[in-house]
Amino acid sequence: MQALRFEENLLAVREIAKPPGAGEALVRVTLSGICNTDVEIVRGYAGFRGTIGHEFVGVVESAPGAGALIGCRVVGEINAGCGHCELCVGNDPRHCPARTVLGIVGRDGAHAQYLRLPVVNLLLVPDDIPDERAVFAEPLSAAWGITERAQVTNETRVAVIGDGKLGLLCAQALALTGAPVLLVGKHPDKLRIAAARGIETVTLTKLRGRERRFDVVVEASGAGSGFDLALDLLCPRGTLVLKSTFHGATEINAARIVVDEISVVGSRCGRFAPALELLRDNRVDVESLISEEFPLSDGVRAIERATAPGVIKVLLRM
Amino acid sequence: MQALRFEENLLAVREIAKPPGAGEALVRVTLSGICNTDVEIVRGYAGFRGTIGHEFVGVVESAPGAGALIGCRVVGEINAGCGHCELCVGNDPRHCPARTVLGIVGRDGAHAQYLRLPVVNLLLVPDDIPDERAVFAEPLSAAWGITERAQVTNETRVAVIGDGKLGLLCAQALALTGAPVLLVGKHPDKLRIAAARGIETVTLTKLRGRERRFDVVVEASGAGSGFDLALDLLCPRGTLVLKSTFHGATEINAARIVVDEISVVGSRCGRFAPALELLRDNRVDVESLISEEFPLSDGVRAIERATAPGVIKVLLRM
Repeated sequence: MQALRFEENLLAVREIAKPPGAGEALVRVTLSGICNTDVEIVRGYAGFRGTIGHEFVGVVESAPGAGALIGCRVVGEINAGCGHCELCVGNDPRHCPARTVLGIVGRDGAHAQYLRLPVVNLLLVPDDIPDERAVFAEPLSAAWGITERAQVTNETRVAVIGDGKLGLLCAQALALTGAPVLLVGKHPDKLRIAAARGIETVTLTKLRGRERRFDVVVEASGAGSGFDLALDLLCPRGTLVLKSTFHGATEINAARIVVDEISVVGSRCGRFAPALELLRDNRVDVESLISEEFPLSDGVRAIERATAPGVIKVLLRM
Repeated sequence: MQALRFEENLLAVREIAKPPGAGEALVRVTLSGICNTDVEIVRGYAGFRGTIGHEFVGVVESAPGAGALIGCRVVGEINAGCGHCELCVGNDPRHCPARTVLGIVGRDGAHAQYLRLPVVNLLLVPDDIPDERAVFAEPLSAAWGITERAQVTNETRVAVIGDGKLGLLCAQALALTGAPVLLVGKHPDKLRIAAARGIETVTLTKLRGRERRFDVVVEASGAGSGFDLALDLLCPRGTLVLKSTFHGATEINAARIVVDEISVVGSRCGRFAPALELLRDNRVDVESLISEEFPLSDGVRAIERATAPGVIKVLLRM
C-alpha cells in the first residue's frame, strides 16, 4: 500500500506492506486531513518516524471480535492505551503512560491507504455526515476538548489567538457555549469564515484597548509570540489555554504568570462523540476550511502546501 | 529617617524624610524580612525604584480615622488598591489594576524606620506572637495562598521544589492540609528543618524514580531549571504552581504542557489572617529559618548575605 512516511529525516510517499493484524481493526482510509502537528513532526517534533497523519475517515475492512463493523464508515480516537491501567479501565486512554498515538507516538498513522486501530477506538460515522465533514472529527474534538480544561459559560469572555485551521475550529466550538468569543488573527479572508458564523473578529493590528479584558484566551497560533499576546489580553486570574504542539522552546516571562496569578492549561485531545454530534447537526462550518485536496501520491506536496500563506486545511484522498 | 533605597541602579541606606500622610496610617517598623523579590528588584525585576522591602512588623504611630490602632503592633497586607473597583469593593485588592504594592510597585517599602499603608491593610498582631514570628506573616500568607490556586487535600501528592525560605514555608503550609508533601532541595541542612516537622525530603540527586508521581508541584526554587524538573515530576493533568518572581525570561517546552495537559498556575499573595493564626498556634516553624539579623544601617550587606549559600532568612532591625 502507499503511505506518507517520515523516515531518516526525509518525507516521502512509499510503497509498504499493509499494517499487520495484532488483534486490531484494519481501516481502509478514504480521506485524511493534514494537521500542523504533521508539519511539526517533519520539523522534529516528538521524534516520530513512520507514517504520519492522525485525522481520517475510512471504511472498516476487518475488525476482530466486532464483525458488524466491517464495511462501516468510521473515524477513530487517536490514543491507543494499554487497556489495563487505571486510566484505560476508566475509558480514558488519552493519558495512558504506555499509549501509542496514531501517526505521532509509536504507531503508523493515517496518511496511508490502510491503518490499524483498536476496535474500541472506532466510532461509526452517521450517514448524514459526508467524508469531507467527518474528516474533521479529530481536530473538532480537540477544539471542543477545551471545555474539559477551562470553564466556559455564556458569561466567559473568550479570545482565540490564531486564525488557522485550529483557531477557526476553537472559536466556533467555544462560541457554541454561548460565550462571547473574539477571534484574533492576521488574515482577513480567514477571519471572515468565523465572522460568517457571528463570531467577532479582529486583526492583530487593531487589538489595542482590549488588554486585560478576557477570562479565557486560547493560544492556537502555534507561534511563541502568541504566548505574550495571550498574557496581554488576559485579566488577572484568567486562564490561558495552550493548544498548539510545536517543536522547540518558548521563552516566557514567568513572573507575569505569578504576578497576575494566571492559569496556563494545556489541552490536547478531546472526545470524539460530541464532535460527531456537532458535525451531524451542522453546528460548525468545516467545509469553508478546506483549501485544497491532493491524492495520497502527492502527499509531500500536500504537506508543503499546508504551510503556505492563505492555505487552511489540506486533505489527502486515497 | 533611614531607608534602604534602590535608586539609579544603586542600593544604599539613605536618610530621607518620613513618608507623607495622604490619609494613610504611619507605622514605625521594628523588624523587616528580606525576600528574594527584594534581591530580584535590585537585579531589575519590576523596574521599581525607592525603598525596598515588604515583610515587616511594626507599631502604629498614626492612623487617620482609626485612633484605636495607635500604639498597636501590626503587620500589613502589601497590596493597596484603588478602593473603588470591583475587586477592591469585594475586599480583594490583590489584583486591583491601579494598586500599589509595598516596596514593589509605586510605594516605598518596609526596609525603613517608617512606612505608610492604608488603615484597611493593617492587621493586629496577637500578643503571643513575638516580632520574630510576626515578620513571617507576609511570606507565610503567600505560601498558604497556594491553597487558593490549587486544590490540595490529604490525598493530593505534593512536591515542593526549592529548600530556600519560600520552599520551606510552602512545604510546611501544604503539609498542614494533610497532603503527603515531598520537599526537593539541594541543601541537607535546610531540608532538615522540614524533616523535623515530619515532611519527607529528598536531594535533587536522589529523585530518580519519582517522575510523574505528583498531582501538584510547587516551583519555589526561583531557578528556570525548576520548571523542567516540575514537569518531570507531575502526573498528566497535574498542576504546577509557580511561586517565584524573578527577573528575566524562562525557556519552556510548551508542547509538554499541551501533551500532558498540565495546568501551570501562578500564585503570588495570600491572605494574612490565616497566616497569623498559623503563627499564633505555632503550626509552622519559622524561627529555624532565621539565619542572620542586621541593623537597618547595614541593609546593603544584609541583602548581599541573603543570597549567600546556606543563608535562609535575613532580618533587619530598625
